[in-house]
Amino acid sequence: MQLVIGNKNYSSWSLRPWLGLKVAGIEFDEQLHNLYAANAREERLQWSPSGKVPVLLDGDVTIWETLAIAEYIAERFPLAQLWPQDPIARALARTVCAEMHAGFAALRTACPMDVRSRHAFEMTPEVAADVARVVALWADCRERFGIDSNEGEFLFGHFTWADAFFAPVVTRLVTYGIEVPAAAQVYMQTVLALPAMQEWLAAGELEVGAAP
Amino acid sequence: MQLVIGNKNYSSWSLRPWLGLKVAGIEFDEQLHNLYAANAREERLQWSPSGKVPVLLDGDVTIWETLAIAEYIAERFPLAQLWPQDPIARALARTVCAEMHAGFAALRTACPMDVRSRHAFEMTPEVAADVARVVALWADCRERFGIDSNEGEFLFGHFTWADAFFAPVVTRLVTYGIEVPAAAQVYMQTVLALPAMQEWLAAGELEVGAAP
Repeated sequence: MQLVIGNKNYSSWSLRPWLGLKVAGIEFDEQLHNLYAANAREERLQWSPSGKVPVLLDGDVTIWETLAIAEYIAERFPLAQLWPQDPIARALARTVCAEMHAGFAALRTACPMDVRSRHAFEMTPEVAADVARVVALWADCRERFGIDSNEGEFLFGHFTWADAFFAPVVTRLVTYGIEVPAAAQVYMQTVLALPAMQEWLAAGELEVGAAP
Repeated sequence: MQLVIGNKNYSSWSLRPWLGLKVAGIEFDEQLHNLYAANAREERLQWSPSGKVPVLLDGDVTIWETLAIAEYIAERFPLAQLWPQDPIARALARTVCAEMHAGFAALRTACPMDVRSRHAFEMTPEVAADVARVVALWADCRERFGIDSNEGEFLFGHFTWADAFFAPVVTRLVTYGIEVPAAAQVYMQTVLALPAMQEWLAAGELEVGAAP
């Protein structure tokens, strides 16, 4: 199984499946693709008809969308419990992943992932609304399924795809110095303390090349 | 089980789960929400923390994202086979649904769903690229899994979530008079001929109220 990913400093979508696979202890080959190389799009089109990364390659299977990669991995490795076992929690976990997948446009546009940098940022009402929604969503998951489960401090107790999907948001809040309530900060520390997260951030630091 | 949907003439995201449930013969209560009422957003927030429709309500479960509704229904009603049974086909079906969920921004912005109208449209390079990708994606699914399966003329032979996800695109191509190759036209006719699709389109025709 091979995962094609973009630059670790910048590619928020690549971080999500990479982190899920690493935390679950699933072996895979990592293929690093430079998003800013001269012929980058042509290179990506060899794997991905949409011209985007990440892409998961597994025998005859090619998956070029992160949510579909998440479902495929969850089906293929059920013991990893990358979705919560409880059907109500699982429905909510999928809902917040899908909300991340197509939402938070203001935050994503104004604060692109850049894990090794710290940028001054002037808050706008649109980004503030997105951040408020993220904070409310984290609190809702943790209060209903996480904190009381005694399984850990992730959104649903133990680590799931929901944590992987919001991990790039955690780095954005750090990079742009955006303040959040104490409970959200505790959650951010939980994500940042993952050894796999530390590994990704360290690789982002050392990576050669900057976005144009 | 209750599905909250927006105006049938306009709400492309509402059409997707509604169509899947109807084609699969799954009973549900339909709650129609007027997206353009004065206090519409406040009304939606009672069901959906993101303030969006559609929303599926099923006992203790509330799901406000269409992809998560699709997964929930597929799990709860496995005999409906709303995902293909073959794992490779299923991975592709989920991939194209996710691509639709977060992609095709140019097409969606320039050509909003408006099933009862016909609009003149001047093609742009960005919309042309989106249409070309839709046509290629349909051809890829049908050639690999649909046409040869002898199960029908849908993207994966029989009707799946992939067809539901692209049904609003079918109506957009009609509404804006966008030309596509013959094979794509045949697929569009397959979708439009569904009794449930006819029911939705007829309701859109009769609906009172127009988008501002």
